[in-house]
Amino acid sequence: MVERRVADCVFCDIVAGAPAALVFEDAEVVAFLDVRPVFPGHVLVAPRAHVETLTDLPSDAVGPYFTVVQRIAGAVERAMKAGGTFVAINNRVSQSVAHLHCHVVPRTKGDGLRGFFWPRRPYGSPDEMATVAAAIAREAGWTPAHG
Amino acid sequence: MVERRVADCVFCDIVAGAPAALVFEDAEVVAFLDVRPVFPGHVLVAPRAHVETLTDLPSDAVGPYFTVVQRIAGAVERAMKAGGTFVAINNRVSQSVAHLHCHVVPRTKGDGLRGFFWPRRPYGSPDEMATVAAAIAREAGWTPAHG
Repeated sequence: MVERRVADCVFCDIVAGAPAALVFEDAEVVAFLDVRPVFPGHVLVAPRAHVETLTDLPSDAVGPYFTVVQRIAGAVERAMKAGGTFVAINNRVSQSVAHLHCHVVPRTKGDGLRGFFWPRRPYGSPDEMATVAAAIAREAGWTPAHG
Repeated sequence: MVERRVADCVFCDIVAGAPAALVFEDAEVVAFLDVRPVFPGHVLVAPRAHVETLTDLPSDAVGPYFTVVQRIAGAVERAMKAGGTFVAINNRVSQSVAHLHCHVVPRTKGDGLRGFFWPRRPYGSPDEMATVAAAIAREAGWTPAHG
């Protein structure tokens, strides 16, 4: 494990031993309670090494990191007797601490939250949708087999 | 790859070739545009094999699945010239299709959305917080090194 620490990063401080309500740790990852939870049992899962966003996570760290996220999702659901979980990462925009962290929030039907209660609307036209899909496919390095 | 298909699952239908605006696919995973996006470029990433939630994903599929999620997060950001992304999974509660899917939504500062605009408040007491942490740690199979 390469331990990259950044000054003035509160999550690097937790990795280094600052007080936190830890719920899990291994060689690569720490998980601890958010101090201002959406609901009690809201956990943040962070890699020990300082990376800012999901795309900055080294490829060999992706599996180990999300294996812990998966484990925490199960643990939160069981421990909080929840009906489900919300698992989310804000990359840069709405990201309060610039050290990758995945929120795991217990959910219960009728808890008053919706996964997305943002306005959603269809694309203006099939052409607009196809253009957007093609732009993302290109950046993903993928070529459709047909046409 | 084990292809588990479920009748009346629209994502299994897409895996099987139903029309969708695909942006990426490999042996394990498909990624396609949400037809009712929060913002244009909103992608759903789903494993080909039908599993309902994150905790149902076989452990050897976690790395390959999130490697694609990471790739799509980068592609969406670049293709849509976004400032960041929101990457989220609803497990059971607020889950519209009961086939695991990760939302990748392009975000831009000032886009009017907030990552969490749900009310958030601290725990009522340090004891309450410690009790919750201990319950989750127990379910995660983790024992703190110190007391």
